Amino acid sequence: MNRSVNRTIKKMVDNKWIEIEDTVVQEKAVTIYVNSEELSTIVCSPWDLENMVIGFLCSEGILKDKSKLKVLTLDNEKGLAYVEIQGYETDISGKLFLKRYINPCCGRGRASFYYSSDAMICKIVDKTLTVSSDLIKKLSIELENNSGLFKETGGIHASGLADENGIFIFCEDVGRHNTLDKIYGKCFMEDINTENKIIVFSGRISSEILLKTAKMNVPIIISRSAPTELAIDLAEDLGITIVGFARDSRFNVYTHFERII
Amino acid sequence: MNRSVNRTIKKMVDNKWIEIEDTVVQEKAVTIYVNSEELSTIVCSPWDLENMVIGFLCSEGILKDKSKLKVLTLDNEKGLAYVEIQGYETDISGKLFLKRYINPCCGRGRASFYYSSDAMICKIVDKTLTVSSDLIKKLSIELENNSGLFKETGGIHASGLADENGIFIFCEDVGRHNTLDKIYGKCFMEDINTENKIIVFSGRISSEILLKTAKMNVPIIISRSAPTELAIDLAEDLGITIVGFARDSRFNVYTHFERII
Repeated sequence: MNRSVNRTIKKMVDNKWIEIEDTVVQEKAVTIYVNSEELSTIVCSPWDLENMVIGFLCSEGILKDKSKLKVLTLDNEKGLAYVEIQGYETDISGKLFLKRYINPCCGRGRASFYYSSDAMICKIVDKTLTVSSDLIKKLSIELENNSGLFKETGGIHASGLADENGIFIFCEDVGRHNTLDKIYGKCFMEDINTENKIIVFSGRISSEILLKTAKMNVPIIISRSAPTELAIDLAEDLGITIVGFARDSRFNVYTHFERII
Repeated sequence: MNRSVNRTIKKMVDNKWIEIEDTVVQEKAVTIYVNSEELSTIVCSPWDLENMVIGFLCSEGILKDKSKLKVLTLDNEKGLAYVEIQGYETDISGKLFLKRYINPCCGRGRASFYYSSDAMICKIVDKTLTVSSDLIKKLSIELENNSGLFKETGGIHASGLADENGIFIFCEDVGRHNTLDKIYGKCFMEDINTENKIIVFSGRISSEILLKTAKMNVPIIISRSAPTELAIDLAEDLGITIVGFARDSRFNVYTHFERII
């Protein structure tokens, strides 16, 4: 399947026009129905869609047990995903879904909000995994080298799930969040343990990205970009190590320094 | 108000650890209630919040007429916005809000989806505005020079509304979409005409960004980054000129070349 398409564009370089074939990244809207109720529409890159839908449902606390997943049908053309989950009641979950939960998480900490679905899933990541400076640099370079589509189009995000040997799952998407959902969904469906693994990420670490990391029980996230204050607060409380601005031979550690050796 | 905060972090540079005070960007969740019904939660940078809320409601087709806006109260501490809009019925709009509308827009074109709220608002931008190559370069540099917070934290997006004299409204936010909502809201509240203006944008032009541009009736969007295929299709159909990768002395034009002189 083509992940990008060619378009004729006009390029201005040093005051001269040239007409060239340029590569642009695809984008599609996928609407998810759970037990015949419309749940959400996600704008995404149109590949690994099953994994993305499953990862999104896991991340929102809607899907918890693989045996309860009865049907997953994708209509690629129309961008529709039909899911049947045994025992899932849209009435209750529909009300909780994306609702705010304005209490401190875990009864402590500086971060003063979670979505209700996050509050239900959130738990402290107490994994003992450690990483060396060399591994951080290696993983950061590996993510960049894997990102062929970014090099080609400049319009895409990438995530990798890694261990001490390197990145073993790699996903790309126009949406930052979707890259993590695609990894989460693949691990859920293939029974791949995400505990004591490392997420390597191309984009900014916002609170939502940090919460997805927590839900996957991953203790370390490494990004080429910056974290936000709220993500740092959440990471401090949830026991996650944030490494930011991992580029070339430098990086910053924002939380839980004890995991860097 | 402080737009960023200091945190003590550990920095690895050339195999040496240094402990420094680093600047990180703030992030907050704001939940919008319209006529006592919870509508949506937006993760954003905690400034220009009134404008952001208004811009979001305009962009979603919920607020169309300033005289109908009866109350706007913000609880900054808790991140809650209470809005009263005369004549707005949550029942109807709640059902339409963020629902897919799986028909070609305007009965033509390649782009095969809109959200229903987009379908209600979408119209072809037939403005005759033209821009010179020099103005494109000037605006791109101006956006970058305005982005002090990006230079400081590396974790923020920026948008400017411009005319031939330069950028006259400038907004920053951790969320790409929010930068445009903040501009939209300010223009709506202060009766600033957005027609025949230019949007200058720091991030990727996705379909959602393009649709916000169309709703503001802005005929030209200039970005330092890439557009997606779906954004290009929508721009082609809706009559909007996309300029991408506007950096230094070069840029790409993807649609409606006739506006570049």
